[in-house]
Amino acid sequence: MLPDAAAIAAAAERIRGRAVETPLLESAELNARCGGRLLLKAETLQRTGSFKFRGAYNKVALLAAATPRPNAIIAYSSGNHAQGVAAAAALVGIPAAIVMPSDAPAIKLANTRALGAEVVLYDRRREKREEVAETLLAERGGALVRPYDDPDVIAGQGTVGREMAAQAAARGAAFDSVLVPCGGGGLIAGVALALGAASPAARVYAVEPEGFDDTGRSLAAGERLGNAVGALTSCDALMAATPGRLTFAINRRLLAGGIAVGDDEVAAAMAYAFRVLKLVIEPGGAVGLAAALAGRIDCRGQTVGIVCSGANVDPERFCRAIREDR
Amino acid sequence: MLPDAAAIAAAAERIRGRAVETPLLESAELNARCGGRLLLKAETLQRTGSFKFRGAYNKVALLAAATPRPNAIIAYSSGNHAQGVAAAAALVGIPAAIVMPSDAPAIKLANTRALGAEVVLYDRRREKREEVAETLLAERGGALVRPYDDPDVIAGQGTVGREMAAQAAARGAAFDSVLVPCGGGGLIAGVALALGAASPAARVYAVEPEGFDDTGRSLAAGERLGNAVGALTSCDALMAATPGRLTFAINRRLLAGGIAVGDDEVAAAMAYAFRVLKLVIEPGGAVGLAAALAGRIDCRGQTVGIVCSGANVDPERFCRAIREDR
Repeated sequence: MLPDAAAIAAAAERIRGRAVETPLLESAELNARCGGRLLLKAETLQRTGSFKFRGAYNKVALLAAATPRPNAIIAYSSGNHAQGVAAAAALVGIPAAIVMPSDAPAIKLANTRALGAEVVLYDRRREKREEVAETLLAERGGALVRPYDDPDVIAGQGTVGREMAAQAAARGAAFDSVLVPCGGGGLIAGVALALGAASPAARVYAVEPEGFDDTGRSLAAGERLGNAVGALTSCDALMAATPGRLTFAINRRLLAGGIAVGDDEVAAAMAYAFRVLKLVIEPGGAVGLAAALAGRIDCRGQTVGIVCSGANVDPERFCRAIREDR
Repeated sequence: MLPDAAAIAAAAERIRGRAVETPLLESAELNARCGGRLLLKAETLQRTGSFKFRGAYNKVALLAAATPRPNAIIAYSSGNHAQGVAAAAALVGIPAAIVMPSDAPAIKLANTRALGAEVVLYDRRREKREEVAETLLAERGGALVRPYDDPDVIAGQGTVGREMAAQAAARGAAFDSVLVPCGGGGLIAGVALALGAASPAARVYAVEPEGFDDTGRSLAAGERLGNAVGALTSCDALMAATPGRLTFAINRRLLAGGIAVGDDEVAAAMAYAFRVLKLVIEPGGAVGLAAALAGRIDCRGQTVGIVCSGANVDPERFCRAIREDR
C-alpha cells in the first residue's frame, strides 16, 4: 500500500504540536549568487536536528494507539532516524532500542542515548544491521520502525513537502524544481507525493553523494541498482546501499532525476551555510545546497526549493569544513 | 523626538520585502532544560546576519527619499551596523563609507566590503570613531547613519519586537520576560517600545557582557554610566562605552533591569546553539541565550523571549567555542 496525499495530511495532523513547522528561508545573497529564487526548508531546525522525527513520530504514534500496543520499539539507523525514533518513543512512553553503526558520529550516538533509547552497536563491515535488529526483535518482541521502507514513515516525511508547498504559496512562489537529499529515499518519496498533489509542475531531484548515487542510477536504468562496495563519503546519513523497494516504487514514477555531488562540494556548501546563511548543516543535509552552489543544476530564473535535511554533525568535521572555506 | 509604536509600524512597512521576517523558534530540548517556554527570535537569519539591517534600511530609505538626497552614506560600526548600512545603501543606490575598527572580526570587514561599501579603518586604542566619521563627513558631505542614537534606527530595530509579539500571539503565547542583547541600546529600546504597545506585561531585560554592563548599572543608578576602560570581552558587537542618550531615555523608562554574563557562559551558549538548536550565533548575539542557560534568570514556568541578534563570527572563534563544549 503506497501512501497518498490523504495519508500525508493525516500525518501532518498527527505530528502537529510535536514536530516543528520549520521555516522556509530565503537569502538575498544566495539568490544573487545562483541567479534564481532559492527557498530553503530548514529541517536542520526540526526536533532532534533532522526531518527524521516526522516519519518516526507518525509511525510510533500509530503503533502506540494499536492493539496490542508494542512493549518495545526497535529500529536501525545511521543516526538521524535513531534520534527521531528515540524522541518519538519517549513521547509515547514505550522503551526503544536502536541498532547503530559503531562509527556513527559521536553526536548522533550521544543524542540517541540522551533521548532515553538503548543503543546497540554493530560493525558496518562485518554485520548487517537488519539482521541485528531481527535478532533483537526475536529476543524481545516489540515493533520495528524501518528508516524509509514503510508507508507511515514516508507519509510522515511527506509533511516536509506539504509545508513547503503551503509556505511557498503564502509568499506567492511556485517551485520549478526541488532538490532533496536522498539516502534510502523516504524523504524524497514523501516530498514528491506531497508536491505531486500541491505543486504538480515542480520537478523533484534526488541529490546524492558521489559513490552513493544508487537512486539516480536506478532512475536512469528503470530498476533498483546498488552502489559499489567500498565507496567513501562524508555524508554518513546517505549511505543506503540500494533504493528502498517501496520508496523506489514511488520515486521512479515521480522524480525528475538524480544529481550527484562530491565531498568537496558538500564541504563548501557547509562553509557557505555557516558564513552566509548562518545555518548548521551536516554533510548529508547539505547535498541539495551543494548541487545549487556547485552549478550541478542551473537555478537561473528558476524558483528552486532545497531541503536542508539535517544538522547532526560533530564539531571536528564541521570545523574542518568551515575553515577550508574557499 | 522619541519613536513610538506608529513609527515602528511605519518602519515595518518600509522594510517589508527587504528584511527577512525571521522565525520565532522553539526547542523542546531547550524548554526541558530551562523548565519554561523559550521562544528564540532568530535575527541570526536576518539579511547581513544581524538585526542591524532593519534600522539601517529604515534610516537609509528615509534619507534616499529626502530632498536633497545625500550623495553618500557615512557610518561607524564594530561590524554589524556596517553590513546593515552597506546593504541598505546598495539597495537605494547611494555609495557608503563605513568607519570600522582595524581589529573587527575578519568576516565583518570582508562582508561589508563585499556589499560594496568603502571601509575606513581606525585604531580603537588611539582614535575615536565618531571623530573619524565627522572628518569624513566634512570632507565628502553626505549623511551620517548612527548605530543606535537615532529615532529612525531605533524604530527599525523595533520591528524585531513587533514581529515577536505577533508571532508569539499566533501560537497562543504571551511573554513573561524578554532577554535582549544590549550594546548602545538601540535594539532593546525598539523592542521595548514595540512590546510596550503589544505585550505590556512583558518584562524586558538588557543582557550585556561582564565589564560592559553600562546599561544595567545605569538603569540601577538612574543615570548614564560608562564602563571601566580596558575591559575585555568576546562580544565585539556589545562594546559601547555608555548607553546612548536617546536609547537610555527610552530604556530607563521601559526596561526591567540588566543581566551580565561572562565569556565562558557566552561560549557555552554558542556551543549549545550549535549542538542542540543548530544555529550559528556570534558571541554578542548569544548573551540572551547565555543568561537563560546559565540560570542568570529563572525561566521555570515562564514564557521567555530571547533575541539571538547576530551571527557574524569568524570560524576560528566559533570553533574554539563549540569544541570546548562542557
